[in-house]
Amino acid sequence: MLYIIGLGLADERDITVKGLEAVKSSERVYLESYTSILMVNKERLEEFYGKEVLIAHRETVESFSDDILKDADKVNISFLVVGDPFGATTHTDLVIRAHELGIEVKSIHNASIMNAVGATGLQLYSFGQTISVVFFTESWRPDSFYDRIKENSTLGLHTLCLLDIKVREQSIENMMRNRPIYEPPRYMTVNQAVDQLLEVEEKRKEKAYTEDTLAVGVSRLGSDDQVIKAGTLKQLLDVDFGEPLHSLVLVGHRIHLLEAEILRENAVDLEHLNLVLKRDYNVDK
Amino acid sequence: MLYIIGLGLADERDITVKGLEAVKSSERVYLESYTSILMVNKERLEEFYGKEVLIAHRETVESFSDDILKDADKVNISFLVVGDPFGATTHTDLVIRAHELGIEVKSIHNASIMNAVGATGLQLYSFGQTISVVFFTESWRPDSFYDRIKENSTLGLHTLCLLDIKVREQSIENMMRNRPIYEPPRYMTVNQAVDQLLEVEEKRKEKAYTEDTLAVGVSRLGSDDQVIKAGTLKQLLDVDFGEPLHSLVLVGHRIHLLEAEILRENAVDLEHLNLVLKRDYNVDK
Repeated sequence: MLYIIGLGLADERDITVKGLEAVKSSERVYLESYTSILMVNKERLEEFYGKEVLIAHRETVESFSDDILKDADKVNISFLVVGDPFGATTHTDLVIRAHELGIEVKSIHNASIMNAVGATGLQLYSFGQTISVVFFTESWRPDSFYDRIKENSTLGLHTLCLLDIKVREQSIENMMRNRPIYEPPRYMTVNQAVDQLLEVEEKRKEKAYTEDTLAVGVSRLGSDDQVIKAGTLKQLLDVDFGEPLHSLVLVGHRIHLLEAEILRENAVDLEHLNLVLKRDYNVDK
Repeated sequence: MLYIIGLGLADERDITVKGLEAVKSSERVYLESYTSILMVNKERLEEFYGKEVLIAHRETVESFSDDILKDADKVNISFLVVGDPFGATTHTDLVIRAHELGIEVKSIHNASIMNAVGATGLQLYSFGQTISVVFFTESWRPDSFYDRIKENSTLGLHTLCLLDIKVREQSIENMMRNRPIYEPPRYMTVNQAVDQLLEVEEKRKEKAYTEDTLAVGVSRLGSDDQVIKAGTLKQLLDVDFGEPLHSLVLVGHRIHLLEAEILRENAVDLEHLNLVLKRDYNVDK
């Protein structure tokens, strides 16, 4: 049996009881480490589980699904995923491969940013499609997210923006020389994301959003030191959200009173928030 | 401290380790029972927790938040919610009331249908807004969901349809006589939802969807006997999804190859699915 187990958002105790039982029953335990990160390290997981945890890098999973699935017809194997098992397509590959090999697969669900973002007070049923913001480079500044945000904002819907994570990046030199040397991990901050968003709006000028658009920045959602701050994009440029992971939500115009109430509790600047709610969102107290 | 704890989707072992610890530390434990249901009963939860579980009905929570919050400044209180704590606005009320009383609130996240629906193979970032389908009555056949689905389908996005649950319904007679007698719970099936959807399309005729639209019906997601079946709406009218809870996803036209691959694995009728994918969704093998 292959168990694909969601670890949830923050630490080792966010696993479900069912998930923990599956880990304890497994011969080998892999931790997926390329689409998201937990806020605790492998050693803490190993101590909590009482067994070794193998790190599955992207290259491992894509080239060596069969290694992960070895003997899974006879013994239990656990594949741990930060958030929920269905957050990333790569696990879909693993599942399809398992099915080809006739190996039974069971997924154990958990929270992911896709539903936990409800903690912002914005209602999940008023979100449109989710977008990803990747780190711009000198030569590569992909802005297709802009069209998606515009589609959502035209309908008055909120947009969850998932921010880029770079783990096991290789420098061009190391890549060309095929040296397995990796750069330190990088996590996009809310500030960087807002900066890139505003750069694209500056270029496109279609008002999918502006620097006065209300947004909510979140970091370390689900942990004891989570931060949730609401303000205009311009205001969020300068808010320190601390350690990763960060995410960003753009607030749509269909916002209702109860949602606005929670934004106020998390306001960077309550007076200015109320002004923008009234002026641009038609929400009065 | 007020803990609002997500129980996840299926049974007592879907609670997180962190959530279980909070329950065990609590003086009183309430189970919210009006926006969703777990697949196990209160007694099984009580046995698993080793303590009494009080049922919080809608009327309790809305009229008596203060009862639930009694002494929460001195002892721990747990409020259990099926799925994730932020699935329903009613908890928002409870949180706001707790804040007014100066009581600390901690939410413990879990899976909900909003992210677990990724188990259909459809990518979460390609979903538009979520809609609710309520039981039609003779005189009340609300179809505002139609406009929402149309907005999503125009953009090519998938739509998650949450299906109605009626618990503690009163007959009109019992309500008028103020008798606390309740009807048996009712849960909308995929078949009923599809029937209502097609009735509204028949009336509106704007082709937000048709009986040839591809959809995925799911039931008891996250449990060992979960059912996931893909087909046209017309086909899903006759598929038996068994016990509750049921949900439905309408497939948008932006579907990509990997998503289609998983639909095929769950096809009611593979040949017909391939025909529709090719003819209406521009997806060839």
